[in-house]
Amino acid sequence: MDARRVRALIARTPALSAENLQALLAAAGGELEGSLAAPLVRHADLPNAARAFLTAPDEIAVDTDLAWLDTSGAAILLSTDPQYPPLLREIAAAPPALYVLGSVEALAAPQLAMVGSRNPTPAGRSTAHEFAAWFARAGLTVTSGLATGIDAASHAGALEGGGATVAVCATGLDRVYPAEHAALAARIRARGALVSEFPPRTAPLRRHFPQRNRIISGLSLGTLVVEAARHSGSLITARLAGEAGREVFAIPGSIHSPVSRGCHQLIKQGAKLVDEASDVISELRISVPKEQLRTPHTEPARAVALDNEYEMLLDALGFAPATIDSLVARTHLPSASVASMLLILELEGRVAALPGGRYGRIP
Amino acid sequence: MDARRVRALIARTPALSAENLQALLAAAGGELEGSLAAPLVRHADLPNAARAFLTAPDEIAVDTDLAWLDTSGAAILLSTDPQYPPLLREIAAAPPALYVLGSVEALAAPQLAMVGSRNPTPAGRSTAHEFAAWFARAGLTVTSGLATGIDAASHAGALEGGGATVAVCATGLDRVYPAEHAALAARIRARGALVSEFPPRTAPLRRHFPQRNRIISGLSLGTLVVEAARHSGSLITARLAGEAGREVFAIPGSIHSPVSRGCHQLIKQGAKLVDEASDVISELRISVPKEQLRTPHTEPARAVALDNEYEMLLDALGFAPATIDSLVARTHLPSASVASMLLILELEGRVAALPGGRYGRIP
Repeated sequence: MDARRVRALIARTPALSAENLQALLAAAGGELEGSLAAPLVRHADLPNAARAFLTAPDEIAVDTDLAWLDTSGAAILLSTDPQYPPLLREIAAAPPALYVLGSVEALAAPQLAMVGSRNPTPAGRSTAHEFAAWFARAGLTVTSGLATGIDAASHAGALEGGGATVAVCATGLDRVYPAEHAALAARIRARGALVSEFPPRTAPLRRHFPQRNRIISGLSLGTLVVEAARHSGSLITARLAGEAGREVFAIPGSIHSPVSRGCHQLIKQGAKLVDEASDVISELRISVPKEQLRTPHTEPARAVALDNEYEMLLDALGFAPATIDSLVARTHLPSASVASMLLILELEGRVAALPGGRYGRIP
Repeated sequence: MDARRVRALIARTPALSAENLQALLAAAGGELEGSLAAPLVRHADLPNAARAFLTAPDEIAVDTDLAWLDTSGAAILLSTDPQYPPLLREIAAAPPALYVLGSVEALAAPQLAMVGSRNPTPAGRSTAHEFAAWFARAGLTVTSGLATGIDAASHAGALEGGGATVAVCATGLDRVYPAEHAALAARIRARGALVSEFPPRTAPLRRHFPQRNRIISGLSLGTLVVEAARHSGSLITARLAGEAGREVFAIPGSIHSPVSRGCHQLIKQGAKLVDEASDVISELRISVPKEQLRTPHTEPARAVALDNEYEMLLDALGFAPATIDSLVARTHLPSASVASMLLILELEGRVAALPGGRYGRIP
């Protein structure tokens, strides 16, 4: 059996664990092509469903998968592959296989999961977008679930911030759920990755969503819940993050807002309250070496120096309106940095964009 | 010297500590009347200002104090009195004397301090009012500082909940600061107490406020900060509560609301997040008899029904602009309630005020 077919078979095997796969590979002397040989499978300690499938595989399904892999350009990443994301390997019930559309490398980059309500407030949606753009600029990949609401705003914000973003799907990657996110999914694929442990043609079954959530939190250094009602799926993601020893962050809101109740519950249970994007970076800085925040194709992590640079920029701005060019001359910061810092300061209500491309400080 | 005059003298003595007073009383063999005898004062270990005053007291000031005590009915409570509040006695720099208008017993009841911004949002003010009423029904005395904003709303809410409330003032009790709270002060006196460590005719000096705050937190099992900006005086009260080993609670809010930033800062530093009044009770491990939460002369806790009323109003509003009158007709809520609910919804970004006195829902 050729390597491509072996990988497609493994990825479609029900009930197989990463440990099972590791044992099969070891029994085959490290040769993946030989790991599904009949005598090996017969003697391996496997769940019944996995053994039954591997003994008599659904060849038509596998053929169809292979055809889709060809046309779509999707890759299969196995837990025994060296490129498999190291943080994901650590979790309980790590998936033995992932289908990936886009950049496999994106899965190993330092990631922050951002999740939340499918019915957020307008303010929550815009917070997700702004924070995600900020994290992207700080060099973090934003990982989420492609759902409507907070998920979509987080992906879109990360893209706008010039960063990578990973969407973990609860369906096969031959479809986009929800369908209206097809354009967003295409952008995510181009600048990050779409990932699923579910084989092609898997429909969005309800029980797949919590299962999928463990991959979102498992890929990530921490999980930030932006807005969530009580009993929402985002709280499952947060719980799984905590169980995997990852940081859990939550953004507070009005006590009268139902989609803040879940966040408040998390904070009561020990999640870190986040009211500025930089809170996440300073909390994660403990576990993220600075170099990791500085991947080659992103600007150097501004997060650490951020406060000083912002103060400097505000000082340079004074209280008379100025253009970006004159601020670049005054601060010696790159003009792209000045522009994005002004955007953040504008979002924070500290500067205002004025006619003629000038910016003014708000006292 | 008669007992009344001795107490008035002690209360007016500058720089005297509760420990100094305790030592003087012990040296006088437990006889308060003898504790200010010249030989005792001469040999006692006293701050210079205290010794100077006790050696040559301002008799005119003391006479004026005594006249005021007579006409106002105020009492002086010394730290050596058995009725002195036990929790207050525990703190560093416990006041040796308190002037009290109203019920001295109220000071020994289980208290919760509620403090916050003098410029709260309407939602914050109404939260303070509702929570204080709930605490009152739960049998807690609400202690605050009689300031405008959160303080006043907390006192008023406690009174409306049928409970007692204590106002700790930063002026002499012969005046009310701010003056517009004269009616509120009279109600507090009738159903609780006004307290000050400052002698009559003390003006509201700026430095008195942080000093006063230690008494608010010192009297209380815990301190709840409802809304507070960064660097606000309420954070001083919270810090003093923490230093005295008392619980610190804070109510979260929108990350875009400046008067929630102080609360968020407290939560980051370890304060308990409170989004329901009952959180405070369960944290303080106070058992509340159910009947107390449902006293005959108060309506059942509105907090529970609140969300429903807001939902009803939003449903009634639909997505076509409507006037307050038409909303009153649709919901059968009082027009004052509709108006204030709309205001809150507007602040939460859920409705917008439109020309012609109409309101529109923000999708």
